[in-house]
Amino acid sequence: MLRGGVDLGGTKIEAIVVDDGNRVLGRAREATPSSGGPADVVAAMVEAIREAAEGASLAVDELAGVGVGSPGSVDASAGTVATARNLPNWDAPVPLAELLSRELGVPVRLGNDVGVAVEAEAALGAGRSYRSFLGLWWGTGVGGAIMVDRKRWLGRGSAGEIGHTVVKLNGAPCACGRRGCLEAYAGRGAMEARARRAVRRGTKTSLFSLMEKHGHTRLTSSVWQRALDEHDDLAERLIERAIRALGAGVASAINLTDLEAVVVGGGLGNRLGDDATERIRRAMEPHLFVSDRPPEVRLSELGDLGGAIGAARLVATG
Amino acid sequence: MLRGGVDLGGTKIEAIVVDDGNRVLGRAREATPSSGGPADVVAAMVEAIREAAEGASLAVDELAGVGVGSPGSVDASAGTVATARNLPNWDAPVPLAELLSRELGVPVRLGNDVGVAVEAEAALGAGRSYRSFLGLWWGTGVGGAIMVDRKRWLGRGSAGEIGHTVVKLNGAPCACGRRGCLEAYAGRGAMEARARRAVRRGTKTSLFSLMEKHGHTRLTSSVWQRALDEHDDLAERLIERAIRALGAGVASAINLTDLEAVVVGGGLGNRLGDDATERIRRAMEPHLFVSDRPPEVRLSELGDLGGAIGAARLVATG
Repeated sequence: MLRGGVDLGGTKIEAIVVDDGNRVLGRAREATPSSGGPADVVAAMVEAIREAAEGASLAVDELAGVGVGSPGSVDASAGTVATARNLPNWDAPVPLAELLSRELGVPVRLGNDVGVAVEAEAALGAGRSYRSFLGLWWGTGVGGAIMVDRKRWLGRGSAGEIGHTVVKLNGAPCACGRRGCLEAYAGRGAMEARARRAVRRGTKTSLFSLMEKHGHTRLTSSVWQRALDEHDDLAERLIERAIRALGAGVASAINLTDLEAVVVGGGLGNRLGDDATERIRRAMEPHLFVSDRPPEVRLSELGDLGGAIGAARLVATG
Repeated sequence: MLRGGVDLGGTKIEAIVVDDGNRVLGRAREATPSSGGPADVVAAMVEAIREAAEGASLAVDELAGVGVGSPGSVDASAGTVATARNLPNWDAPVPLAELLSRELGVPVRLGNDVGVAVEAEAALGAGRSYRSFLGLWWGTGVGGAIMVDRKRWLGRGSAGEIGHTVVKLNGAPCACGRRGCLEAYAGRGAMEARARRAVRRGTKTSLFSLMEKHGHTRLTSSVWQRALDEHDDLAERLIERAIRALGAGVASAINLTDLEAVVVGGGLGNRLGDDATERIRRAMEPHLFVSDRPPEVRLSELGDLGGAIGAARLVATG
């Protein structure tokens, strides 16, 4: 049976149709509405799924179902998503599964965005050869998921929040309202805010001219990549600062859990690729307690479509 | 059958004899030699076990065996301990099980000191009602152990090193050679070093006069307790600094793993007791990502003998 998968991100909605072998038969991308509310986001998701189905030459209602990897607080059994900070006016629980299912005419299953992406890496990607690993999802925020004995470790339901490891007591303010979180140094959102402050103080950078030149309103991962390619000083400094924080936070997680490996993904992780993965590996070294046996650090294999592929895996094939 | 258990610490050696119901029939305590080498430590351990057996009115060779909870790098199957930083001249692997067994005439099993103590809390103490929890062992160093589904999670063999969570990038130097580790703020060893520096700079404190009055050469847990009882300003400030670091480090561990509970033990944790446990709980609050569902934070129930009781559990009863 063919299945749909949607990766609902803060900047883009990625939809795919896959077959039983997880081959991608159709795909589409929509910008995530940055204003309005849940109804606008649902409309953009429906549009993306329809387009992806069209690319696979079929109607949406021929799909066995659609899986959605969502940010925020996902209640999979209730089919709701609450407190999605990167989505417009999305605080109270939204019955996302029901709203989508009504529009699409097929069952919809929800999962945590980072969780489904990391589970996909475990089943099909860079995590295949490990029984236990940490998925480090580096994007607008810094997310994570822990695989233990090939299953996702959820704890009481919310495990994996490595982005809210305190790497600096009384440190930088984080979008979550706390201080010193890893995400306050390494999240693309925090990095953009810091770059904007630096520009207001007179720092020269090509980050914002590259952003405008390529038709963006935010510093996307591709903008960061281009600025690094040009050896932009501010971009290099902010990425170095992010990587130092990631090194400390991820090494701390390894000191605690002693997992076999770290798989690096997420928008920025995937875009900066092998080079960033190697830099994170090196940045961990000074902080690893068992320094002669570091974990393997690998780039995700499924890349930008991993989230949508993982979402499609939420739909049971019969 | 009766079993022996030894908790080998950096300042004291605690030996007990227990019956099948883990009731303590005899106990003895020796100071850990602070100079010399492994042979001196082994001699003090033998003395402590003999004395504990005597207290239980039996000869050592009537024990089913002796278990040892050891600091440093413990290889249980090889029966060796290496790189025990708080023991004198103990760097290369020492065949501790064989050396003790030869002297005592009974089998000796080794385990990690914090690990056996936390497993004892899981089986017999404050961890009984949780499937998963973090043991936070606050003493000379800051150790930890993770229980997952009622079993100790070892990772690749070294999980639990919460003391080497980086709580402050480029922060205070740690005895491990790294910077900014939780232990550099909260370890009793680091706190003593900082107190000594403060005194050299002219800070007034009763810590060292209390130490001398009670016949110690180091700031033991009881010295800290007495200084707090007197509202000594330096002691209060250093304990507050330690608790703030513990709050951040432990909350970060919970954000990552979402375990059900934290059990606080170790020499300083047990001595400062419920008050410190409550302060750690409160210090975690500002850093918990899922702030409306904090883990329970509880004081260990087995107290100072927990390590030795846990060590005795290494001996299989037949």
